[in-house]
Amino acid sequence: MNSKFHYIEISKNGPADTLEINEGSFNEHLADDEILIDVKYSGINFADILMRLGLYRDAPKKPFIPGYELSGIVKAIGSSVTKFKVGDEVMAGTKFGGYVSKIKLKDWQVLEIPDGLNLKEAAALPVNYITAYIAAHEFGRIRKDDRVLIDCATGGVGVVLMQLCEKVGAEVVGLTTSPAKKDFIASYGAKAYTFQEFENTDETNFDFILNSSGGKSLKAQYQRLSKSGKMCCIGLQSAVTDGKGNFFSQIKAAITSPWYPILKLVMESKSVSGFNALSYFDDEPWMQKHLPSMESTLVKPFIGEVFKAEDVARAHQTLEQKKTRGKVILEW
Amino acid sequence: MNSKFHYIEISKNGPADTLEINEGSFNEHLADDEILIDVKYSGINFADILMRLGLYRDAPKKPFIPGYELSGIVKAIGSSVTKFKVGDEVMAGTKFGGYVSKIKLKDWQVLEIPDGLNLKEAAALPVNYITAYIAAHEFGRIRKDDRVLIDCATGGVGVVLMQLCEKVGAEVVGLTTSPAKKDFIASYGAKAYTFQEFENTDETNFDFILNSSGGKSLKAQYQRLSKSGKMCCIGLQSAVTDGKGNFFSQIKAAITSPWYPILKLVMESKSVSGFNALSYFDDEPWMQKHLPSMESTLVKPFIGEVFKAEDVARAHQTLEQKKTRGKVILEW
Repeated sequence: MNSKFHYIEISKNGPADTLEINEGSFNEHLADDEILIDVKYSGINFADILMRLGLYRDAPKKPFIPGYELSGIVKAIGSSVTKFKVGDEVMAGTKFGGYVSKIKLKDWQVLEIPDGLNLKEAAALPVNYITAYIAAHEFGRIRKDDRVLIDCATGGVGVVLMQLCEKVGAEVVGLTTSPAKKDFIASYGAKAYTFQEFENTDETNFDFILNSSGGKSLKAQYQRLSKSGKMCCIGLQSAVTDGKGNFFSQIKAAITSPWYPILKLVMESKSVSGFNALSYFDDEPWMQKHLPSMESTLVKPFIGEVFKAEDVARAHQTLEQKKTRGKVILEW
Repeated sequence: MNSKFHYIEISKNGPADTLEINEGSFNEHLADDEILIDVKYSGINFADILMRLGLYRDAPKKPFIPGYELSGIVKAIGSSVTKFKVGDEVMAGTKFGGYVSKIKLKDWQVLEIPDGLNLKEAAALPVNYITAYIAAHEFGRIRKDDRVLIDCATGGVGVVLMQLCEKVGAEVVGLTTSPAKKDFIASYGAKAYTFQEFENTDETNFDFILNSSGGKSLKAQYQRLSKSGKMCCIGLQSAVTDGKGNFFSQIKAAITSPWYPILKLVMESKSVSGFNALSYFDDEPWMQKHLPSMESTLVKPFIGEVFKAEDVARAHQTLEQKKTRGKVILEW
C-alpha cells in the first residue's frame, strides 16, 4: 500500500538554503520484524551540517536523506513484533534517513520513551546521549571528585555530559563563547567561563577533557591535564566556523590538530583519544551490551529550538552559527 | 655518630660488571622527622639498567646511587616520629639512593609492611605495585568483564596487574617470550601465549593493553584494540635487548614508536597513553591522595631471584637478559 510522505535530502553541497522539503511516495508494507512510525520530531546534529558542506568523509553518496534520530507514534507493526503496539510513543536511532515524516525500522532499533520524557525530548536524546555516555563511561570512566573540562558545555552533548558528571559527583568546568550562557552552565552545577576568560585562568589538573573544537585548542587544553589525565576529542568544529566551512578550513584543522608521539605521552604521563559516536550507532553488539547501562542513566536533554520541517534551512543555520544552546529539532 | 655502610653506585655507563659494591661512612644523626633503617633488601628495576647503560634521561649526574625501593628494620627514630618504633619492619619508596645497607628517610616516605608480606616481598612491591595500580585504576580504570592484554605478564608489573585484574573480574591475556612460562601466567587465571603464538591468533577486542615493549609492537597491538579501547605504554624495553642496549637501539625505538594524529584516534575511536611511574613516586600530593586506595588493594609480588648485594652485576644481567620471571632483589 502506497501513501505520501515528506523527506529532506542533501542533493548538493552548499549553504543551508540548498535544503528543501520534498514529497514522495511510501510503501507501507512491513516485514515481520519491522515497525512503521509516524515521525513527529527529527533531531539535527552537527554531522548533518558537515555532510551538507561536503566535509563528512563517511556520508552516503548524494542524493541522500540525512538524520540520526527521531521520535514518533507506532502506526503499524510486523507480524512478529511483540515489544510495541500501535499508538505507542517511541524513539529511535537511525544511521542516516531520519529527516522523514514516516519510517520503517527493525524492532531492535526502536526504544520505548522512558517516563518523564516527552516526544520532543526523545528526538533530542539518542545521538547526544550516546556521545556523552561514551565520553563519560567508556573513555573517561569518570569517577567522584574527578575534575572535568567540557569545551562544548552549552551544546547538546555538553548538557548531557554535565548531568552524567553531576550524577557521579565529578567537578565540572564548562566553556562557552557567550557570557550570556554562563548562568545556563552554572544551573547544571558546573563552573562557567567564556573561552577568553578561561585562557587567563590557572584552572588546571583536569582528569578528563572533552574537546569538540579540535585544532589549536587541543594543544592548549593538553597543558591543563593532570597527571594520568585524559584528553578526548569528539569533533572537528574548528573546521566549520559561522557557516564558512570549506575545504581550506578542513585542511587547516587537520594541520593544526596535533600528532602525539607515544614517547611524549610516556614522559608526560597523559592520554589522548577521540571517537566518532556515529560509528557506535549501528553497532548492534555494542548497543546491546551497553543499552541496560545507558537506560539506567538516562537524563533530560535540553531543547534549544524547534523548527517546522519546512524551515530546515533556518534550523541548520541556527546550529551552524552557534546561535542556540541545547538541541535543535525539526517538527513534522 | 659515624658508622660504616655499603652502597652500590653507577660511576660510568657500561655493562653490568661496571657495578661494584663500596664501603662508606654514614652519619647516623637524625632530624626530628627522620627514620634510620637497616636495609635488608633493595628492589632492582628495569630503569636502573637503563641508567647504567646511559639511556635514562632523568638519571642524576654520575656518580650516583640508583634504587627506588627497599625494606628493612627501623634502627632509630627522630624526636617527632610517632608512627614507628625501633625494631619495626618497614618498606619504602625512594627516588634514587635505594642500593644501600643503611638509609635515613622522612617518615612520610616509610610504610608499615602489611600483614602477610615478608621483608623480601616488601622490597619487591613499591615500584611494581604503583605502576600496575596506575595502569589498572588511573589509565585503564579497568572494570569487570574488560578484556586486558599484558605484554609483560611474567615481569614484576605484569604479575601485580594480573592480580588487580583478577580482583575486578577482568579477562586477561598474558604474553611471554618463553613457552615454559605459560603455566606461570595461567596460574593467575590469565590466558597465556608466547609472542610468536599470539601473532597468529585472532585475539582482538581488547579494552586495555599494557605495552612495555614499545617500538613496532605498538602498531600491531593497536590493531587489536576494541572500540573505545585504550593502549597504554609504560616502557622502552625494545631499546634494550639482551644487554645490547645502546644509543642506536634507543634511536631506533624512538623512530619505530608511532606518532598518533588525533584525527586518526577520532576516526578509529581509540585511546593511546603512556606514563612513567617513577614520576609519581616522589609526588607527595598524588601519593597521599591514592595511598588509601592502594593500601586497600595490595597484592603479593612474585619474587624471581634474590642476589647478595655483592653479586649486583649478576642480578642486573638476569633482569636485562629476561632470564627470570617476577622481581629481582638484592640482599644486604
